[in-house]
Amino acid sequence: MPGLEHAAGPRTPGTATRGETVPTVPPASKPAPRAAVDVTALLERGRTLATPVLRAAVDRLAPPMDTVAAYHFGWIDAAGNPADGDGGKAVRPALAVLSAEVTGAAPEVGVPGAVAVELVHNFSLLHDDLMDGDEQRRHRDTVWKVHGPAQAILVGDALFALANEVLLELGSVEAGRATRRLTTATRALIDGQAQDISYEHRDRVSVEECLEMEGNKTGALLAASSSIGAVLGGADDATADALEKYGYHLGLAFQAVDDLLGIWGDPESTGKQTWSDLRQRKKSLPVVAALAAGGPASERLGEILAADAKSSDFENFSEEEFAARAALIEEAGGREWTAGEARRQHVIAVEALDAVHMPDPVRASFTALADFVVVRKR
Amino acid sequence: MPGLEHAAGPRTPGTATRGETVPTVPPASKPAPRAAVDVTALLERGRTLATPVLRAAVDRLAPPMDTVAAYHFGWIDAAGNPADGDGGKAVRPALAVLSAEVTGAAPEVGVPGAVAVELVHNFSLLHDDLMDGDEQRRHRDTVWKVHGPAQAILVGDALFALANEVLLELGSVEAGRATRRLTTATRALIDGQAQDISYEHRDRVSVEECLEMEGNKTGALLAASSSIGAVLGGADDATADALEKYGYHLGLAFQAVDDLLGIWGDPESTGKQTWSDLRQRKKSLPVVAALAAGGPASERLGEILAADAKSSDFENFSEEEFAARAALIEEAGGREWTAGEARRQHVIAVEALDAVHMPDPVRASFTALADFVVVRKR
Repeated sequence: MPGLEHAAGPRTPGTATRGETVPTVPPASKPAPRAAVDVTALLERGRTLATPVLRAAVDRLAPPMDTVAAYHFGWIDAAGNPADGDGGKAVRPALAVLSAEVTGAAPEVGVPGAVAVELVHNFSLLHDDLMDGDEQRRHRDTVWKVHGPAQAILVGDALFALANEVLLELGSVEAGRATRRLTTATRALIDGQAQDISYEHRDRVSVEECLEMEGNKTGALLAASSSIGAVLGGADDATADALEKYGYHLGLAFQAVDDLLGIWGDPESTGKQTWSDLRQRKKSLPVVAALAAGGPASERLGEILAADAKSSDFENFSEEEFAARAALIEEAGGREWTAGEARRQHVIAVEALDAVHMPDPVRASFTALADFVVVRKR
Repeated sequence: MPGLEHAAGPRTPGTATRGETVPTVPPASKPAPRAAVDVTALLERGRTLATPVLRAAVDRLAPPMDTVAAYHFGWIDAAGNPADGDGGKAVRPALAVLSAEVTGAAPEVGVPGAVAVELVHNFSLLHDDLMDGDEQRRHRDTVWKVHGPAQAILVGDALFALANEVLLELGSVEAGRATRRLTTATRALIDGQAQDISYEHRDRVSVEECLEMEGNKTGALLAASSSIGAVLGGADDATADALEKYGYHLGLAFQAVDDLLGIWGDPESTGKQTWSDLRQRKKSLPVVAALAAGGPASERLGEILAADAKSSDFENFSEEEFAARAALIEEAGGREWTAGEARRQHVIAVEALDAVHMPDPVRASFTALADFVVVRKR
């Protein structure tokens, strides 16, 4: 990933993952055991366990919501024909089934949790895409664009309700606790979207505000994903809290990397346009960090972005004009700061695992997923 | 209420309620004990117990969602000044606190349930008003009209999440059961809205389809309202199911009356325009029943409504033109059928209470609320 390669230290021996990119982050101060973990297999396991249950849950929706949801998940195309869409990286279900193993339970115990977090995640995507007016997601037209705003609202609502249903129909005390934690995460998700919307109308956003918003939008649900299987497996609150700390900081690392990819990512890998976040005038971490840094490049960037905000011709800007803005962000230190922030959050995430007693292979898998998140290219 | 007065039998002695309209529905086949119950006081009790807790819950929302929600509930006006808005009839909180007393618990035990059902109800209003493009609710501009579509989506989502939070933070097994029942009701609510939207695009809707839609949109949440306090008070599933049967059929009676008021209601009482549902081309019960009835008036009505659906001048129709349509609906029997349906559902609702052991004053209150629902004028 360009953002991290730029600022990364030397490669760390012993962190190679089978079939994966070598992580470019330095080890945590107290290195966790880093056995060879196949991250691709770990992600695939979560996807394989969760998808049939997710599809069965979505099939419960009354027409036409079942069809609209199936389109959103990429299982069918806009004409209703079966499709094999890009369902995303599936980090959340991988974390949910892995967290069940913390308690010694089978990964299957985490499956209702994996399905519930995926349903909440996709509820928020459906509503956010409509609120933000985003026309594309995962290389396809968004639901509101294809099926209209009412269906995007309605199916989002239905997926949210379904998430609670999938958990609560287990009927156990653990399911009640898991739903409560998921509800807290969902409220944070909504808070984050509210902040995101309000920041769009402001000239300046502080680094702290940006981190708080990203913690809500990305950290909270990755936190719930990292604890939900354990809670279903009977873990106590201290264990769940520690796993949520891991997930929350993993989310912040994830989002910092996302923000780097949003500017300097390779369109071939990300599936997005070049300078994607700049085109959307997103006040992402590299931008707010560059603006907060001070100095000539920071001041020049501030002047240019203020002028851009008033420009009526912004959509027709050339590649060179966006490249110039990206260069100023980098010159002001926004790129390096964000890469450093990703590494910092990665360290906090991995250290949080120290507070939890768990089998060594499970710990190694959590660590490998954290490593994966900061080296990914998409 | 015009719809029922038209078709009602003689007034039944012994059903008078203090300070209330005399019920115009015949008694159930096995008359429930009908002590003098002050329905106004019953509604006021639910409102008084629930409102402070509801306001405290809404205060938890991050800005600007707290303000938008306060506007929606009528606690402040569009400029942010305190207001004493019309919060609605508050039948749901009255049922929720009453249902706690079924188990011998204090009405306060039902309060988190009352707040949760009010939150879910208002989540659905916020989203439905946006989906339906409705600009007015309770004599005021709707949230999407004042604060924009994004806030209507976001605050709706937040109220839905808050409903689960308010229940699940009780941390009890009963709270988990109550949340599960509320989730089932919410899914039905969403199904009903999906049906409502799809029916708008169809020429004909059967009476059965209309009843199913109304059962989902209105019956399901009144069902949950009628059981939630009892569940929180420790009632078993059979008791909760019987109370939900009461609430479901109460909801169908409620909606039949609403459909009558939507055509023949007095604008002074309802706060809506004359012939409100006809202006919106709603396929409500009197309309679908009239269309299904057959005969000359039914056929003539079908022809007129089919022409109306294609008319580009519909919004400028005169009072007389709507009055003529209403007269045809009545001539075809749609008004009388719907009034009869309200009475039929009222009887089923009250009979459902026979399956539940509960203190006599509680039974009398449930019965009085059912009577109130079918005689109300707004």
